[in-house]
Amino acid sequence: MFQYEYPHPAVTVDITIFTISDNQLKLLLIRRAMEPCQGKWALPGGFIKMDEDLETAARRELVEETGISDVYLEQLYTYGKPGRDPRERVITIAYYALIPSDKVRLQAATDAEAVGWFGLDELPELAFDHSEIAEMAYQRLVAKLDYSTLSFQFLTPEFTLLELQRVYEIILREELDKRNFRKWALALEQIEETGEQRREGAHRPAKLYRVTSPGKVDIIK
Amino acid sequence: MFQYEYPHPAVTVDITIFTISDNQLKLLLIRRAMEPCQGKWALPGGFIKMDEDLETAARRELVEETGISDVYLEQLYTYGKPGRDPRERVITIAYYALIPSDKVRLQAATDAEAVGWFGLDELPELAFDHSEIAEMAYQRLVAKLDYSTLSFQFLTPEFTLLELQRVYEIILREELDKRNFRKWALALEQIEETGEQRREGAHRPAKLYRVTSPGKVDIIK
Repeated sequence: MFQYEYPHPAVTVDITIFTISDNQLKLLLIRRAMEPCQGKWALPGGFIKMDEDLETAARRELVEETGISDVYLEQLYTYGKPGRDPRERVITIAYYALIPSDKVRLQAATDAEAVGWFGLDELPELAFDHSEIAEMAYQRLVAKLDYSTLSFQFLTPEFTLLELQRVYEIILREELDKRNFRKWALALEQIEETGEQRREGAHRPAKLYRVTSPGKVDIIK
Repeated sequence: MFQYEYPHPAVTVDITIFTISDNQLKLLLIRRAMEPCQGKWALPGGFIKMDEDLETAARRELVEETGISDVYLEQLYTYGKPGRDPRERVITIAYYALIPSDKVRLQAATDAEAVGWFGLDELPELAFDHSEIAEMAYQRLVAKLDYSTLSFQFLTPEFTLLELQRVYEIILREELDKRNFRKWALALEQIEETGEQRREGAHRPAKLYRVTSPGKVDIIK
């Protein structure tokens, strides 16, 4: 075992978590309790420990700063431009997660003084390069609508096709044709009927569906 | 400015470069001239410098170790399992690149004692977790065939539809129907006729095409 004599960068993880509530795509932010950027809103995250895996670090930071556990996490991208952090060279591995809004039980802790959901159109100014990370996470989410079941993570385990359609419409910011969307969604062969129905307002009861392989995000061929 | 007192990991970049030659998908490997894993084959790569961007580091290592410059690079994934390098905690940011085989002018240098192309079915045992990285790079390549023009990077600037089809067939390891493939490729609206033709063997001359936006990888909607 030998150490290199040249300096090493610091390494952090940052997590972009999206949910859908009030018919809006929302991003989870914490308010920084410490310098640098004290008082500014930022993505939850922090320094990795030397003996933990990267995803483990992301999950630990998420629980510590927001109280959220047990989410589906994917690696997004690694940002390492010199100067992106005023303290020293910091490379950050960004993750993203999608959660249904009923799973949200927020609690600020450790180096966050507040935590909250912000509509993507109403984001405050973010610390570091976190706006850039949030923007890439949103672009990835949009791109994956077409070829994966990623966005199904926003739904509760049982959902109607109209609820699924609303998820797509909210992310894409456009209305979709109901008949075409249903045809497309069923042709994916990623969801199945539960056998139950749910009444939505004054409409006739709608069939409930569930994902065929829950917890798994499939690439749609 | 202040430094954190806890230890920092080392950070490297590694690059998976694919080409197609002899009707095979091939991966570029270097033979390590230094410990650890001296004499083993590995992906080209090395430690980042404190004042360079991550992609800059990847391009620098690529030139230093293989002589290849001016390629299209995409970030693949960041690997950081503790223990993946016997020296110390090393986190590596993997990139991947595709190049046409006529662009290959290899030259081993610095900490590589040899450099060469290996068919994906004939890879030697690789150093560190580089087999895992190479496998993920291949999976990404396959997945992107369906929804991006990434694989067009394997072609020379002017190509026939049959050459494009062969790229797809070699990556997918299966024969494709010629008529369906042509219909699909033209419907992408990512390529255009050059107006020239090329004679291939005893067949009648085939139209030459070029990518509409060269150097740009488009997501196919």
